[in-house]
Formats: sequence, C-alpha cells, structure tokens
Amino acid sequence: MSNKTTRNHIVEAADQLFYRQGYEHTSFSDIAVAVKISRGNFYYHFKSKDEILHAVIDARLASTRKMLESWEFEEKQPEVRIQNFIHILIANRAKIMHHGCPVGTLSTELIKQNHAAQAEAIQLFTLFRTWLCRQFALLGGKEDADMLAMHLLARSQGVATLANAFRDEKFIKNEVKQMCDWLSSYTQIATCKTDEHQACENVRR
Amino acid sequence: MSNKTTRNHIVEAADQLFYRQGYEHTSFSDIAVAVKISRGNFYYHFKSKDEILHAVIDARLASTRKMLESWEFEEKQPEVRIQNFIHILIANRAKIMHHGCPVGTLSTELIKQNHAAQAEAIQLFTLFRTWLCRQFALLGGKEDADMLAMHLLARSQGVATLANAFRDEKFIKNEVKQMCDWLSSYTQIATCKTDEHQACENVRR
Repeated sequence: MSNKTTRNHIVEAADQLFYRQGYEHTSFSDIAVAVKISRGNFYYHFKSKDEILHAVIDARLASTRKMLESWEFEEKQPEVRIQNFIHILIANRAKIMHHGCPVGTLSTELIKQNHAAQAEAIQLFTLFRTWLCRQFALLGGKEDADMLAMHLLARSQGVATLANAFRDEKFIKNEVKQMCDWLSSYTQIATCKTDEHQACENVRR
Repeated sequence: MSNKTTRNHIVEAADQLFYRQGYEHTSFSDIAVAVKISRGNFYYHFKSKDEILHAVIDARLASTRKMLESWEFEEKQPEVRIQNFIHILIANRAKIMHHGCPVGTLSTELIKQNHAAQAEAIQLFTLFRTWLCRQFALLGGKEDADMLAMHLLARSQGVATLANAFRDEKFIKNEVKQMCDWLSSYTQIATCKTDEHQACENVRR
C-alpha cells in the first residue's frame, strides 16, 4: 500500500469506529487492529487519536460538500434538492437505526467532553444549514430561509435520535413523508407569494 | 450524613456529571471527588460505575414519572398538558444549550457503547412516549396517538440537539412556538372530527 492509501485506510476505519461505538469508546489500538498495520507504520501517519479525529472530520466535511454540490448541480429545482436532503433518512435508515446520525452523535459527544474539535464537528451541521438556507432562499423565502433550514435540520436530527432508540423503520418513513408534505405545502405558499408579488408588480406597470 | 443521604448525594452528583460530561468520560473517582467522601464510604454504597448508572436511571425515571403525573393531576385539558411537555425546552433552555437533552444524550451514548443499561435508558423515552400518547388519545386521535407522540418527541429531540450545537436561544423559542401552533391546529381538527362524529350520531338517533 502507498502511504496515501494507508493514511486513507486509517481515516476510513476510524470514521466507521467513531460512528459505530463513539469517539471516546474507540481506542488508538482499536483503529490499528481494524487497519491491520504495524504500530510503527501507524505512528508514521498519526501520533494521537485527536489527530485522527481531525482527519476524520476533514474527510466527512469533504464528502458532504461533494454530495451537496452534486445535488445542486444535478437538480434545478430547489424543492427536489431539499427532498434529497430529507431522503438521507431513508437511504441511510439501517445505519441510523443502529448508530444514529453521524453528524449529530459526534457533535453531541465532543461538546459534552468539551473537546477541542467540537467546533470543527459542528461545521458539518453548518454545511447542511448553509446549503438548506440557500435552497429555501431560492424557493422565495429569503427572510425565513435560515429559520426553515434549522427547522428541517432539527426534524431530521430528532427522527434519527428516536429511530436509533426505538429501531423503528415505519416511524422514519412516516416522518419523511410528513417532512416532504411540509416542504411541498411551504413551496406552494412561497410560489403563491411570488405570484402575488408578480401580480402587484404587473398592476403597478 | 445518614447512609441514605450519602447514597442520594452520590446519585445526584453522578447524574449531573453524566449529563454534563457524558457517562464514559466520567470516572468513578470523578464522582467520589464531587461528593467529597472517602473511597471506603463510597464503596459501601456502590461497587462500580455501572451500579451508579443503574441508580441514576432509576432516579431519573422516578422524577420523570412524578412530573408527568403531577401535570396530569393539575391540568384537566390534554392540550395544556402537552404544552407543558413542549415547554420543557424553554424551562431547561440554559442546560439544553450547554449539554443537550439528558434523555437523548444518555440513550445515544449507551446505545453506541452497546452498554447493558441501554434498554433502561430508553425507558425514559418510553415514559414520555406513553404519556404523550395517552394525551393525544384523550384529544380524540386514538388511532394516530402514538404516531403523534413520536412526532412531538422527535421534534423536541431535534431542537435540543441543534440548540446544543449552535447555542441558539432564539431558535428554541421559535421552534417551541411552532410546536404549540402545530398542537393547537391539531386540536382544532380533532375537535371538529369529534363534533362531526357527534353530529352523525345525532342524525342517526
């Protein structure tokens, strides 16, 4: 394995372990065992678990950014883009029922431990928040866009927490449907407002 | 201090520490230091951190049961009782912004660690779920009562997670208002349905 590949393997293994069993509960040697490399080779890449955490958060930020950019590139309609976000709960439901949301559970854990990396972990939420905010602004709700983004992010987080506690797939599907209904009724109101505004503009002319 | 008082002091101190810094992050000796008693006296009451966890969850279950019973006793209207639940987010907002929800964060942590006490911790959610379900059934939505209970529990959890990540009091207040609006519009629909049902019954007679 090249050095870059080995480093990536360590980060991927740590990412999975932190998600499945928590950051504090995962030891430096748990990760070394999972990657199956010598301690010397391991230390060549990372000197501490904190360094690995930093790399894991960076990797998560990069992959999230990539996913959100591709949704924006592939879908013209902001409503469909937001639906993509809501459907993360369906796509990842098996993992969510077992381990919760990777963003929410890591942030919560690091905040509780008052860990130096808590602000970095929260950046993952900020990525989603900013992206959702932009989509709601495009839908016509410029003033409320951040509030709507936070509302949807919160609903998604709550569903993940309870799906994890009760391992309930039907609950996830039901809540996803409600979130999509909420979005579509919001979109209709926003469209009406825009039309009204357009009508007013037309009258003025 | 009597033996019972000492035991209670240990449980209260552990409860606070588990909430503020997490279960795994809190050591047996952190608790002993907080209670300021000798190691011998400590061991007389608890032999392990797991034993303390068990007592902490029991204490939380007892105090939650007491709170929910008092709401049911003091308020006749199920809608007002549910509003009381929603307003926990306001009453405890300072703590929630610092440490999240005590129920959600403990469950999530113990599930991730695959801890033997995870099912006990989830009982705290079940208490709220069952209680909310009963209130929604009283409001007239017998078939949907559990779904509505889970919906509200999820929204409350999501708000706690994001309030903790962003330390945003305005966000909490705004979401609480939205949850109360949602409840009141649901209550109106449920009342209409009951009235309609009553009207149908009257026609039949």
